[in-house]
Amino acid sequence: MADDPNTRERILRTATGLFQRQGYHATGLNQVLADAKAPKGSLYFHFPRGKEQLAAEAVLVGGADLGDELCVVLTAARGPVDGMAAVAGILGARLADSGFRAGCPVATVALDVAGDSAPIRTACASAYAALGDELTGRLDAWGVPAGRRESLATMVISALEGALLLARVRQDLTPLHEVAERLGDLVAGECRAPTGL
Amino acid sequence: MADDPNTRERILRTATGLFQRQGYHATGLNQVLADAKAPKGSLYFHFPRGKEQLAAEAVLVGGADLGDELCVVLTAARGPVDGMAAVAGILGARLADSGFRAGCPVATVALDVAGDSAPIRTACASAYAALGDELTGRLDAWGVPAGRRESLATMVISALEGALLLARVRQDLTPLHEVAERLGDLVAGECRAPTGL
Repeated sequence: MADDPNTRERILRTATGLFQRQGYHATGLNQVLADAKAPKGSLYFHFPRGKEQLAAEAVLVGGADLGDELCVVLTAARGPVDGMAAVAGILGARLADSGFRAGCPVATVALDVAGDSAPIRTACASAYAALGDELTGRLDAWGVPAGRRESLATMVISALEGALLLARVRQDLTPLHEVAERLGDLVAGECRAPTGL
Repeated sequence: MADDPNTRERILRTATGLFQRQGYHATGLNQVLADAKAPKGSLYFHFPRGKEQLAAEAVLVGGADLGDELCVVLTAARGPVDGMAAVAGILGARLADSGFRAGCPVATVALDVAGDSAPIRTACASAYAALGDELTGRLDAWGVPAGRRESLATMVISALEGALLLARVRQDLTPLHEVAERLGDLVAGECRAPTGL
């Protein structure tokens, strides 16, 4: 039972959701096991370094899932303005559907614990680096010159993270949509041959 | 002893620093009292609603202190480019001096607990609103037209918050400086009579 790979996956997915909404310290391992319907011994069987390992892996899984979702809408978008609006749509829907609890799956853990745990901090940095790489590729496809892509990707990720935070505390998606609109214009203005939409 | 107003102030300042670095859940009231050198009964005497009240007030104090610091450098700045660089300088110095632990005094508590506590969430929203008002006033002084100021202030705060988060997990101030440079250009481009620096 304990070595069932589905159990590992279920624990990890459950933990990802709980850490995202509650942060690291407020999430107890008993809650993870109960919500995942996993037997008690299975946590340390699958995650021998305990909660710290679970959180580090959860941040990577949460970041990768988010990256996959964003990749789909960005690839389908007609251009930067459309793409940034679609990203805000996804992030806003996640936030609102969770009663303004589920912000970025990386940020909550990052602020809560990254200063105290090198493995978790490193996982957060990797998750953001992966999101940055994906976005940089998209900026390339949209025609942003090579020397401008990285700092523009940093700007986009930073602004969306901050807007998610503001939207969460205000319980209002306006900051997210305002920021996405400005990011769309900013990215469009950096394209070699502006694509408009 | 317990009703000494200096004790209240000392507890609040100590709590502000601890919440900023560790988040809400990881900060124990015993640690606050010990670090503030305050007698045990004094916490509930000055903060009858306990940790929740302390965190809500700490967020307001931390936000106001940050706002005061930013106001000084923004008022002294020659223009948006100079001003955004100075803001990044202050935020970066705070972060680096604390071993990449002290990010935004509001954000850490906001993500850690805002979903579970209406008083703390409201305090976080008020702290961000105060920062937004201050920034909007500065954008006015720099010549940003009225209809553009609010969303621009939201963009600036969001991007700086996100950049602080990225800098914290990367233990590297580059995201903060990159974002500040882009924000300086963005704000300068919105001024009626561009002030350049």
